[in-house]
Amino acid sequence: MSTPASRVLGNAPLGEFALIERHFARAPRATDVRIGVGDDGAIVSPAAGLDYVLTVDMLVEGRHFARGAEPVLLGHKTLAVNLSDLAAMGAKPRFALLAGALPSSDSAWIASFMRGFDALASRYEVDLIGGDTTRGPLTLCVTAIGELPAGSAITRAGARPGDVVYVSGRLGDAALALAAASGSIQIDASLLPALRNRLDAPEPRVALGLGLRGIASSALDVSDGLTGDLGHILDASHVGATIDIAQIPCGDTLRSLLRGPDREIALECLLAGGDDYELCFTASATMRPRIDALADALGLSLTAIGATRAEQGLVILDEDGRPLASPPRAFDHFA
Amino acid sequence: MSTPASRVLGNAPLGEFALIERHFARAPRATDVRIGVGDDGAIVSPAAGLDYVLTVDMLVEGRHFARGAEPVLLGHKTLAVNLSDLAAMGAKPRFALLAGALPSSDSAWIASFMRGFDALASRYEVDLIGGDTTRGPLTLCVTAIGELPAGSAITRAGARPGDVVYVSGRLGDAALALAAASGSIQIDASLLPALRNRLDAPEPRVALGLGLRGIASSALDVSDGLTGDLGHILDASHVGATIDIAQIPCGDTLRSLLRGPDREIALECLLAGGDDYELCFTASATMRPRIDALADALGLSLTAIGATRAEQGLVILDEDGRPLASPPRAFDHFA
Repeated sequence: MSTPASRVLGNAPLGEFALIERHFARAPRATDVRIGVGDDGAIVSPAAGLDYVLTVDMLVEGRHFARGAEPVLLGHKTLAVNLSDLAAMGAKPRFALLAGALPSSDSAWIASFMRGFDALASRYEVDLIGGDTTRGPLTLCVTAIGELPAGSAITRAGARPGDVVYVSGRLGDAALALAAASGSIQIDASLLPALRNRLDAPEPRVALGLGLRGIASSALDVSDGLTGDLGHILDASHVGATIDIAQIPCGDTLRSLLRGPDREIALECLLAGGDDYELCFTASATMRPRIDALADALGLSLTAIGATRAEQGLVILDEDGRPLASPPRAFDHFA
Repeated sequence: MSTPASRVLGNAPLGEFALIERHFARAPRATDVRIGVGDDGAIVSPAAGLDYVLTVDMLVEGRHFARGAEPVLLGHKTLAVNLSDLAAMGAKPRFALLAGALPSSDSAWIASFMRGFDALASRYEVDLIGGDTTRGPLTLCVTAIGELPAGSAITRAGARPGDVVYVSGRLGDAALALAAASGSIQIDASLLPALRNRLDAPEPRVALGLGLRGIASSALDVSDGLTGDLGHILDASHVGATIDIAQIPCGDTLRSLLRGPDREIALECLLAGGDDYELCFTASATMRPRIDALADALGLSLTAIGATRAEQGLVILDEDGRPLASPPRAFDHFA
């Protein structure tokens, strides 16, 4: 586990996103490309009425997962992080391609990995349609394709001033598991398995994403930390927001740590911890009844944590209603 | 350069393909998946009349390219090997997603890499629509999407007994460059740059692929070596073939080596050398005039090297018309 401290405590602002902005973002040539580089997924329109969402994620041993990680969990997570990107745009998952560099052709390892991958694929009716295998340092790369009615994708760019900011489920558990694993924080051993499960076997919020079509004005998945990820919505939508720490949903363990001597680390986990793969979204206040109904239908909490406004910038209020002077920053691979 | 000898001289038959067969091949669930794992690309049908071809290739430093490889050439090759897969199915390249693990955020390196990538993308009007960057051992993974009229893809499974077997351009140059670089063979220094260019900057045969729609009965790109790659066509089509070494197009350097003391290595380069990215295809003998016209139109040689037959197996005849007892085998990442 080479990176837990930097994942939890990483504090450089720009690297990865500046890199993308400088080298990879470009205006698409073709008119059937609706969204290119820069959202959770790209959108192309193969036919009238139909959009495809395409997304790719690469997981590297020692970076995204520990050496010796359980292959069955890794197979799950490798697909889950991609389905999470599709969910964040409201797309129904359809197809996946899997490329992997493997140190050896360990058939038992691969079989176990594919059990985890296939179990998740099966639940969401995803077809694995292609791939590539080669020898190399353990690296996994999934491309996932989802579909939705043309124009119904939820992007990062649709938030309007006065929208309510929501997050699904609860945040910070995965980062807390990493912090405990790295020794940055002491957690009662009996509490660890549940936290660890959030880190190792995240559940992509696919049904939520589908349900948010026509309701959410913007959305993304919280993979790098709430502060940074919400910041992408604000940047893309040209709005600002104020959120309340007291409103951000988290588990009892994290909530009590926020009141103790490890508050700083707990705050990092809550605001800058990645890997929860919950959705953060915005919606007009008029959508409140539909959002409450969706939460009931899914058995998943959807919590209002603040609101957007015309004036840019993200203000995070502490439990006493005072703005945090230096909020923790999101994880960045090149910080 | 950790692998040139194994790439040129690798001789185990099954590893990578047995792996794919055992762990990754499966019948698609959805009816709009026309072809899943096992061809150059997958085919899905988003709408009546339209098919998308999807393919993914992962390139690993020290495996597919040498440490310190020129980034501009690497950018070209990373995309080229994927466009080659699309070409092999007759698809017009449309979109690409690029995921990369990079040891550092070296902006000059990335800019140079993207110059090579973009120059090729621009020539074929490919839109880079998404990606992912992370830190890790240098690994590049491109997913490419092409399109074609529904049902017009050229697969590996369409060869019929009595078809003529063709290859485009010439084979073995890339493998010869690798053999020279590894010291397995001595090549006059003045001849190296042209060979090296075939290895470092392969040209995907996109126009040929498009031209072969309705002409070729089967096709693939020669990435792992003619013997193994043609073997995939024969397996998928349930036919056999006989090909003539004397007919296989190659450069003067390789042709003269075939007549000298380095004949065994030259034969390996010709029959089992990967990385040329020419197309190998089959077509009914009645297509000969159309194939000759296509070769003229493209300024690219298309050479008949043998014929398929009902009886399975691949027979390779030497220059005296005698079957090779133990033909060199194709490159396999897990051999």
